[in-house]
Amino acid sequence: MNLLNKTVKNIKEPDAEVYEAAKERLRNQARPAGSLGILEDVGARIAGIHGTIDVHLENKIVVTCAGDHGVCAEGVSLFPSEVTQQMVYNFVNGGASISVLARHAGAQVRVADFGVDCDFAADLPIFHKKVRKGTANFVKKRAMTREEAVKSVEAGMEIVGELLEEGPIHLLGTGDMGIGNTTPSAAIIAVFSGIPVKKLTGRGTGIGDETLQNKIRVIEKGLELHQPDPEDALDVLSKVGGLEIGGLAGLVLGAALNRIPVVCDGFIATAGALIACQLAPVAKQYLFASHNSAEVGHVFMLRHLGLRPLLDLEFRLGEGTGAALAMELIDASTRILADIKTFAEAGIQDAQ
Amino acid sequence: MNLLNKTVKNIKEPDAEVYEAAKERLRNQARPAGSLGILEDVGARIAGIHGTIDVHLENKIVVTCAGDHGVCAEGVSLFPSEVTQQMVYNFVNGGASISVLARHAGAQVRVADFGVDCDFAADLPIFHKKVRKGTANFVKKRAMTREEAVKSVEAGMEIVGELLEEGPIHLLGTGDMGIGNTTPSAAIIAVFSGIPVKKLTGRGTGIGDETLQNKIRVIEKGLELHQPDPEDALDVLSKVGGLEIGGLAGLVLGAALNRIPVVCDGFIATAGALIACQLAPVAKQYLFASHNSAEVGHVFMLRHLGLRPLLDLEFRLGEGTGAALAMELIDASTRILADIKTFAEAGIQDAQ
Repeated sequence: MNLLNKTVKNIKEPDAEVYEAAKERLRNQARPAGSLGILEDVGARIAGIHGTIDVHLENKIVVTCAGDHGVCAEGVSLFPSEVTQQMVYNFVNGGASISVLARHAGAQVRVADFGVDCDFAADLPIFHKKVRKGTANFVKKRAMTREEAVKSVEAGMEIVGELLEEGPIHLLGTGDMGIGNTTPSAAIIAVFSGIPVKKLTGRGTGIGDETLQNKIRVIEKGLELHQPDPEDALDVLSKVGGLEIGGLAGLVLGAALNRIPVVCDGFIATAGALIACQLAPVAKQYLFASHNSAEVGHVFMLRHLGLRPLLDLEFRLGEGTGAALAMELIDASTRILADIKTFAEAGIQDAQ
Repeated sequence: MNLLNKTVKNIKEPDAEVYEAAKERLRNQARPAGSLGILEDVGARIAGIHGTIDVHLENKIVVTCAGDHGVCAEGVSLFPSEVTQQMVYNFVNGGASISVLARHAGAQVRVADFGVDCDFAADLPIFHKKVRKGTANFVKKRAMTREEAVKSVEAGMEIVGELLEEGPIHLLGTGDMGIGNTTPSAAIIAVFSGIPVKKLTGRGTGIGDETLQNKIRVIEKGLELHQPDPEDALDVLSKVGGLEIGGLAGLVLGAALNRIPVVCDGFIATAGALIACQLAPVAKQYLFASHNSAEVGHVFMLRHLGLRPLLDLEFRLGEGTGAALAMELIDASTRILADIKTFAEAGIQDAQ
């Protein structure tokens, strides 16, 4: 548990002085104070994280984390598990939703396998971080061992390190692919929030009423069996999964350690962020919520983290699609901060 | 009234067949149906307007419409009227908020003077469409004559024509600059909706409680004096103003006539859209609401038009800043529609 412990201990706060200087500049710009709403604080936070007011988010990367879920055996999803691996190929081939939206945002997409239930060819251009081939069905047994949970989180951290060897990362987006993964995600927020499962469980890819009722019962049963400890994120992760959720948590922690802002996608990516922030609450200061997912439990996750989403477009896709789109707004926030002239610079009269 | 009448009569509906074909393609893409939320319909609508599924919004233009307001004499704003002209120079010099956000969106900014209370040099690179130097104080008399109202709307239409002579326009954004212009905008939605003025009147650039109460009384007094006819948009426009709001209405109508989608900014630009859509209800089909302004009356305007905003970032700046930012989402919606592969194209299993 060396890498995990070391990372958690070494995450520092963003630069508060730069943040305050950014706020000051925003107040003096030639426009009504506060008139660019929540993008002002986003810009100031990014400045604090990067340690400078003139940030250029040139290298943006979305890491889409894949894994399979034993709990699919309980019939919680509309799609068969095989779709997880098929979608990995679709990401690599550039025709998937995240491929399209990341391209639009000027971001790279990188795919990481933390636990897809298949063997990918070694030369497939993805991060090969498979901890095991899918989790166990958590209604029957622990999704993974505690050691495997640690390994999945550390694998996410390693990816940040490997990406940094290729070049700087100015903004990291997190996304997911894993048929069935809204099920462990709902379980995770249920454990952390104490809110009843039925209020947190949604339709995922679009299941009907009957399947939804079954999904709720499955989660309730799993939580009753395992009694995950909300004070111990690794206990929670190992009991309900998933492997990609561990990876997503590791990405957040690795980014925070390296002072990289992280924009997290929807329900599953935020479940990973919950795990990360339980392990290292300071990581929250590096986190940005991209959007308000249509998945009903997501709003409770964001509330738990104290994050306000940038977009609310009824997305419920995952892959990092919301994160990619929000990158454009975060990018805009940096230009707002650095490029809009002050009253003095523009020679305009301030308010009376 | 020739140009206005001709335009209103000649606006056609978007192509319903292309719209339906777009919906069909979206349903078949390799992702859960409906999972890209409201951007799906945005993309389909843009396709219907452009008459093709593979739309590339290469030429995006924001037209920022400026005018002054006699009602400023009543102390309704925090800023002096002179700021309107100062901001026009700031737009031209590229350091204003809209300059920065339009650049980010890959859009041009063009500035139009419909009634700023000054003489701009003839070689200032703006559209010189001054109808008169500011409106009259509508608490005392009609803001402008009916003829001037028509002239302001037609001037907006002319701008679309002149821009089209320069090249194609794939997406038009509307924005405003005019110290005091939240006052006539609140008056306009009050007339159209019948909702009490105090529910529709906000703090504009950031006025305090006392000034807000005064602003409400000013609008109530003006409406009582003039009794604008909600069935006659030109009556409304001529009685409360403003000249740039007429121009904004003309831009919407001119764009709709030429099958150009229009993304309108916040409170003032939407007031212009209200005038346009009362004159030609079909124009609504070319309209996209960029954002939910922090100005309290805006939500009632959007409700009146039946439009759902794309962003909700507590912007309350105008200039076209919300429109510019939303252009990036609209652009993304075109890529979603055209570029995401279908299940068949990607070789992925559809839902069970």
